[in-house]
Amino acid sequence: MTLLDEDRLFPTEPAVRGLARALYDEISDLPIISPHGHTDPRWFAENQPFPDPAQLFVTPDHYVFRMLHSQGIPLEDLGVPRVDGGATETDSRKIWRLFAENFHLFRGTPSRMWVEHAFQEVFGVTKRFSAETADEIYDQISDCLGRDDFRPRALFERFNIEAISTTESALDDLKWHKMIRDSGWGGNVVTAYRPDAVVDPEFDGFAQNIARLGDLAGEDATSWTGYLAAHRNRRAFFKSFGATSSDHGHATARTEDLPQDVAAKLFDKALQGKCSADEADMFRGHMLTEMARMSLDDGLVLQIHPGSARNHSADITARFGRDKGYDIPTRTDYVTALRPLLNAVGERSDMTVILFTLDETSYTRELAPLAGVYPALKLGPPWWFYDSYEGMMRFREMATETAGFYNTVGFNDDTRAFCSIPARHDVARRVDCSFLANLVATGRLAEDEAPEVAHDLTYRLAKQAYRL
Amino acid sequence: MTLLDEDRLFPTEPAVRGLARALYDEISDLPIISPHGHTDPRWFAENQPFPDPAQLFVTPDHYVFRMLHSQGIPLEDLGVPRVDGGATETDSRKIWRLFAENFHLFRGTPSRMWVEHAFQEVFGVTKRFSAETADEIYDQISDCLGRDDFRPRALFERFNIEAISTTESALDDLKWHKMIRDSGWGGNVVTAYRPDAVVDPEFDGFAQNIARLGDLAGEDATSWTGYLAAHRNRRAFFKSFGATSSDHGHATARTEDLPQDVAAKLFDKALQGKCSADEADMFRGHMLTEMARMSLDDGLVLQIHPGSARNHSADITARFGRDKGYDIPTRTDYVTALRPLLNAVGERSDMTVILFTLDETSYTRELAPLAGVYPALKLGPPWWFYDSYEGMMRFREMATETAGFYNTVGFNDDTRAFCSIPARHDVARRVDCSFLANLVATGRLAEDEAPEVAHDLTYRLAKQAYRL
Amino acid sequence: MTLLDEDRLFPTEPAVRGLARALYDEISDLPIISPHGHTDPRWFAENQPFPDPAQLFVTPDHYVFRMLHSQGIPLEDLGVPRVDGGATETDSRKIWRLFAENFHLFRGTPSRMWVEHAFQEVFGVTKRFSAETADEIYDQISDCLGRDDFRPRALFERFNIEAISTTESALDDLKWHKMIRDSGWGGNVVTAYRPDAVVDPEFDGFAQNIARLGDLAGEDATSWTGYLAAHRNRRAFFKSFGATSSDHGHATARTEDLPQDVAAKLFDKALQGKCSADEADMFRGHMLTEMARMSLDDGLVLQIHPGSARNHSADITARFGRDKGYDIPTRTDYVTALRPLLNAVGERSDMTVILFTLDETSYTRELAPLAGVYPALKLGPPWWFYDSYEGMMRFREMATETAGFYNTVGFNDDTRAFCSIPARHDVARRVDCSFLANLVATGRLAEDEAPEVAHDLTYRLAKQAYRL
Repeated sequence: MTLLDEDRLFPTEPAVRGLARALYDEISDLPIISPHGHTDPRWFAENQPFPDPAQLFVTPDHYVFRMLHSQGIPLEDLGVPRVDGGATETDSRKIWRLFAENFHLFRGTPSRMWVEHAFQEVFGVTKRFSAETADEIYDQISDCLGRDDFRPRALFERFNIEAISTTESALDDLKWHKMIRDSGWGGNVVTAYRPDAVVDPEFDGFAQNIARLGDLAGEDATSWTGYLAAHRNRRAFFKSFGATSSDHGHATARTEDLPQDVAAKLFDKALQGKCSADEADMFRGHMLTEMARMSLDDGLVLQIHPGSARNHSADITARFGRDKGYDIPTRTDYVTALRPLLNAVGERSDMTVILFTLDETSYTRELAPLAGVYPALKLGPPWWFYDSYEGMMRFREMATETAGFYNTVGFNDDTRAFCSIPARHDVARRVDCSFLANLVATGRLAEDEAPEVAHDLTYRLAKQAYRL
Repeated sequence: MTLLDEDRLFPTEPAVRGLARALYDEISDLPIISPHGHTDPRWFAENQPFPDPAQLFVTPDHYVFRMLHSQGIPLEDLGVPRVDGGATETDSRKIWRLFAENFHLFRGTPSRMWVEHAFQEVFGVTKRFSAETADEIYDQISDCLGRDDFRPRALFERFNIEAISTTESALDDLKWHKMIRDSGWGGNVVTAYRPDAVVDPEFDGFAQNIARLGDLAGEDATSWTGYLAAHRNRRAFFKSFGATSSDHGHATARTEDLPQDVAAKLFDKALQGKCSADEADMFRGHMLTEMARMSLDDGLVLQIHPGSARNHSADITARFGRDKGYDIPTRTDYVTALRPLLNAVGERSDMTVILFTLDETSYTRELAPLAGVYPALKLGPPWWFYDSYEGMMRFREMATETAGFYNTVGFNDDTRAFCSIPARHDVARRVDCSFLANLVATGRLAEDEAPEVAHDLTYRLAKQAYRL
Repeated sequence: MTLLDEDRLFPTEPAVRGLARALYDEISDLPIISPHGHTDPRWFAENQPFPDPAQLFVTPDHYVFRMLHSQGIPLEDLGVPRVDGGATETDSRKIWRLFAENFHLFRGTPSRMWVEHAFQEVFGVTKRFSAETADEIYDQISDCLGRDDFRPRALFERFNIEAISTTESALDDLKWHKMIRDSGWGGNVVTAYRPDAVVDPEFDGFAQNIARLGDLAGEDATSWTGYLAAHRNRRAFFKSFGATSSDHGHATARTEDLPQDVAAKLFDKALQGKCSADEADMFRGHMLTEMARMSLDDGLVLQIHPGSARNHSADITARFGRDKGYDIPTRTDYVTALRPLLNAVGERSDMTVILFTLDETSYTRELAPLAGVYPALKLGPPWWFYDSYEGMMRFREMATETAGFYNTVGFNDDTRAFCSIPARHDVARRVDCSFLANLVATGRLAEDEAPEVAHDLTYRLAKQAYRL
């Protein structure tokens, strides 16, 4: 018995399934390029064993604990730490059993497939996860985790990761990245520049963050020109640890291209904590354009991740803090919002802006038409709630006719769940091969062209767009 | 010859069709749970024969007469009553012939399938409906309607309805429900609490409605606390006639959680007819949260049906009144709108809020992410214009990956067309089995798990969510 | 070898494919009705040979050059003329090679299929287009273009076009249409009334345009009543050259039905160039309703094409002017926006308003519910970026259940690329047959009804809706 169907996610009509499988067989062993994600560089720096199954699969994975919570299971019972340091469940086996008893909740979800993929392919588990098998599977995974060939670097190599990017704050000292480099280990782990803390006037401790930015960069970051110079300095520092991109997660896609004196005054106001909500948004929007201009010089790819309403539940945020599954997608406008940035750099073919969305209605209406004409613009893969069979298929069906394949950039796993990386890339590869097989079967792509496209979507486009 | 294809709505690939049919065979005979709808309790109270085919299938069914009207047929010719009591067609056979001559307009619509299902399964009609067969079919159905085994209670039993909910105004005396109960008949017909007339300051005669509410409840409903007490009293009265839910049809999904003194002042303004449009909306929004708090005490499930722009044509509304097919869906925002209510009760796992939408773009972007984390929140089935093969399939494809199956609540027929009830539930069962068969065939669900899910979607989830 | 798969765009399941093919075989040879488009009447008037392959396929086709540009190819290199008259590439063979080298960019796009259809069916090219074959194919097409049977009128007849509509400004003298008529050639080429220049206060030279309108019509068009009379006069003139429709491309779907004195004052303000942006929008919206009222008298079909944000790139617009692929769809609201017009004429079954959209989310939520009830309203086919396999399939899947087939109006090619006309109609016919075959295979339409529907969608509905 196995948990995974060998032909999963392929079309059901036998001839088309055959086409998809043939395409997949040619690309399934390609190395993983993971140009955007949230793995912890400390894992690879220290190379310590992962603690236990619950701490690997449940407690840190918001996809998993949000679903369990949606059916009334308190986050405390899943071991999610409380802001006040109060008691939460610490018995990992107990947490694991709770997960097992409720595993039916994940039927039809991508989490189910990711977990079963990791169970089978990483840990050799082939029994269905349930209350009955919970302990046996816990023991089996625990045993593995104690072995050297399940330490982070060994898994990295076994997962066939050619390059992976983590994401660090602009204020991070990158000590784990330094430790990785100094270790002499050959794994290619790079960082990415994430400046939320120093471009968002509403971020906790903005003024102190700017001061710290100045210290790190050796600039007077409290003046507008010093502030920009400090960014340039930090970007160079990040580049020295392999960074090829910056990453920007804003509530909206708003961009601005203000005159420098106006931007400078807005920055002063931000430093004094006097920005209105709209001014703070304007400042964030302007900083996207400044970042884009810096990209023209230093070559970092600019990634924009807009549209999440963060921390929707006041109660959960108060008790458990940020990133607890309460970030909800919102309607996002791109056409008007991106115009200032695109008018500033959109015609440049020597730089790359990668756009993501949490609003699928924008694929056909806004994103594909924009990426299908502006040389600088490319579409990121389906993200977050859309990192799934249906989400990926809708993306290809909705974006390809107007943007083509070559204004997209391959797959991003965007994950902090290390063992799900091969699973997620495998899903993307299968969906792309299924989509291509359908094109071939309906006369929209020649059969001899499909393998090249499959290879591009799996490997070349990500490598090239992210300069990895 | 038959009107219905035995394998209708199943996937076309033979192997997957076989999977779907096997699932369907296991659940097709399950009793109907109909937890939300608009059948008339008087039918079951008096148990009189239905009048004639036109009055059963055409005149009261806005799906049918709106389509006929869209091609230029005056509503008068279809027997739809005029506000001024003026002449409309009264010859049911003439109306029936008009319906028959234009039956091709319904090609590709769910109405076509509902009508043919009722023709074949309820009345034994197996000929195609057309100008040629109109009279013959009219006679055949008329003959049936005259027989005792086609009276409402007999059909109720033949339809295998285990429980059905009607919907009554908070001001209704529930006399038909009383008559049903007093009759000793065993059919389980419950009511639902619909307070539009007494929570919407813009409702016709709002102040008089409040006075009447106070009389019925024995409370001074003109004071804020008395008004809330009156609601509690009426909800208890409705519960005594089996109600397990309240139902709220607002133009938007706006909710508010105002301080009690602010709410009280707003209520005074509403009573005096001095609310602005925005204040009226705010009051309605606040009352959703008050209703939710009452649900914490009395256990009624809170249903929210937002997003319909009612009575779009001024001319038709003036001549024929409300509910004449001119209610049009509108863009609906949930993320911001629901936050006050969710912050008040969303974390409670001892209550249920069921959300419906007329804006399908909200499934992946807003509703599934919200229902996939808040313990109190569940997603209602596709509603109104989406109560169809494509609408239901899109719902499953768009909601399941993030919300799973267990944050949904089975099917609602939501109908006033009694004979369409088995048809609508049959469509839902077939679509769900097709969706599940596709999951199995693409390795996203194990074959041995699918029957349990099919049973849950058909029967258990509705029964459990609505406490029926 | 052929470029085109004979069964392209048909369902992949063999039995359903067979159904689709059988339907297609019955309608594939029907004449083309092209009731809305942008071919140049001069072609048919002068009947001169088309110049060369690049000027036929690349330089004038924004679908083609926007995709090439999106990957960094300057518009100059594609021969797109500059506003300042500066140098752009004039070597058509060089442009052609650039197109060939980058033809892989069009994989999975409708442009790929249109180009290959024209290559094979019009010019007999059967080799894959690439850098290697570029010159050979250039020569083959060039040779054809020099022959009499490839002149515009010969192609018109070979394409089996029964009727085609061009689109001309209200200020056009229709001299090419006169020349066609005077020539005695039998091709049915009609015009359509496009009054943007004289209904949009923000149009370049609005006041001069109004003066010119008055001159052409022999009316004092600077008074409100004279202005309306001038429109009536020009509409009659256009009708004398076969026009059966007017066409209105506005940024939004806003309509107004202002009192005549208010409209008159707004018109004065517009003439004086004093309208605010909102007032200009209000005036355009009101003129839609005036045009609709004129349609009640003269029978012209009113077409509304809303929702494009024009000339998104300031740089490209400055250097190359309008219509350079930088028009981006935007979110469009219909429910509120159309209410004034629908309240004025929506209940009239003696007139036709055809609505188009660039916002697919409106199909199920707004457009199908509106067209499914208002007698005057019909849905136009998928337009612009949605004139494709996926776009057309989504339209049928999303619109049919609520609007049926008979509130739609067949296909429009809407193109200025003459050789793509047969290709585009062929795509529409195949998609419709595939959709119908799926309905039959899933028991949603009887097999004996499908051929009639296929014929209606291909031929009758367009002819009837546009009175051609």
